[in-house]
Amino acid sequence: MKRIIVAAAVLAATSAGLATAQQPKPEDEIRYRQSVMNVVGRAMGPMGAMAQGKAPFNAAVVQKNSALIDSLMGLHWNSFGPGTDKGAPNKADPRIWKEAAKFKQAVETGQKAVATLADVSKSGDEAKFKAAFGEVGKACKGCHDDFRTKEFHD
Amino acid sequence: MKRIIVAAAVLAATSAGLATAQQPKPEDEIRYRQSVMNVVGRAMGPMGAMAQGKAPFNAAVVQKNSALIDSLMGLHWNSFGPGTDKGAPNKADPRIWKEAAKFKQAVETGQKAVATLADVSKSGDEAKFKAAFGEVGKACKGCHDDFRTKEFHD
Repeated sequence: MKRIIVAAAVLAATSAGLATAQQPKPEDEIRYRQSVMNVVGRAMGPMGAMAQGKAPFNAAVVQKNSALIDSLMGLHWNSFGPGTDKGAPNKADPRIWKEAAKFKQAVETGQKAVATLADVSKSGDEAKFKAAFGEVGKACKGCHDDFRTKEFHD
Repeated sequence: MKRIIVAAAVLAATSAGLATAQQPKPEDEIRYRQSVMNVVGRAMGPMGAMAQGKAPFNAAVVQKNSALIDSLMGLHWNSFGPGTDKGAPNKADPRIWKEAAKFKQAVETGQKAVATLADVSKSGDEAKFKAAFGEVGKACKGCHDDFRTKEFHD
């Protein structure tokens, strides 16, 4: 058993691109932030189509995807630490570090909007979903407008 | 409200790198698979340290991280569709498509091991966690040995 546990742990550390005792490198932090956002974006897609009326409302998908986004939204904010503004191509705006309090507030607005979406999605009510999804979109856009650059930079 | 919903939907489509009605491009599928695995790997890290005795057992972290991995493990398998073997640097082995039934079995073994880990983690029992984590490690390693190349290829 011990050998299996060690193998699993080594695998975990390798998969994450970091040794368990080390601070993640800036490029790993950037990649992680982008990975979380990529998974969030994919989960948003079908809900966006439903909100626009381009796909029929599917309460089960809405519930599953909003719960997933809710569990992801808290993960990557800790990966905007000092020194993670460069190290790999990314779109993080320098204002993230210059206006840290404002960034934190934008993050919290997003987290709250997503938590509300996940909560109302349990009801299976389409109108409530659309309203909550709209608020998530506003929060996403607000944060991206202020803290995401248009082009990638190193 | 309608304008907000449209903005949110456009944002969702943009974030995911795909228009809602389109089939994702191979490079988007590859990026998505890698993103999911990156988030899984990061969640595995602290549990690996605990399994190895390098960090104290923390039942709350184990429960949270194993639930997250459980919700992620089903997401990316659909992104190994035909034609997604190339399009961006990746480590997918051609055997994924040549030995599709074996790959599917390996995937299911991994999903079951992760579901068990998430389940036993609710108990807060360290020994059960270690046993289940070992099985997850075995499943990860088995699939990676057979279906992941050592180096990136285009």
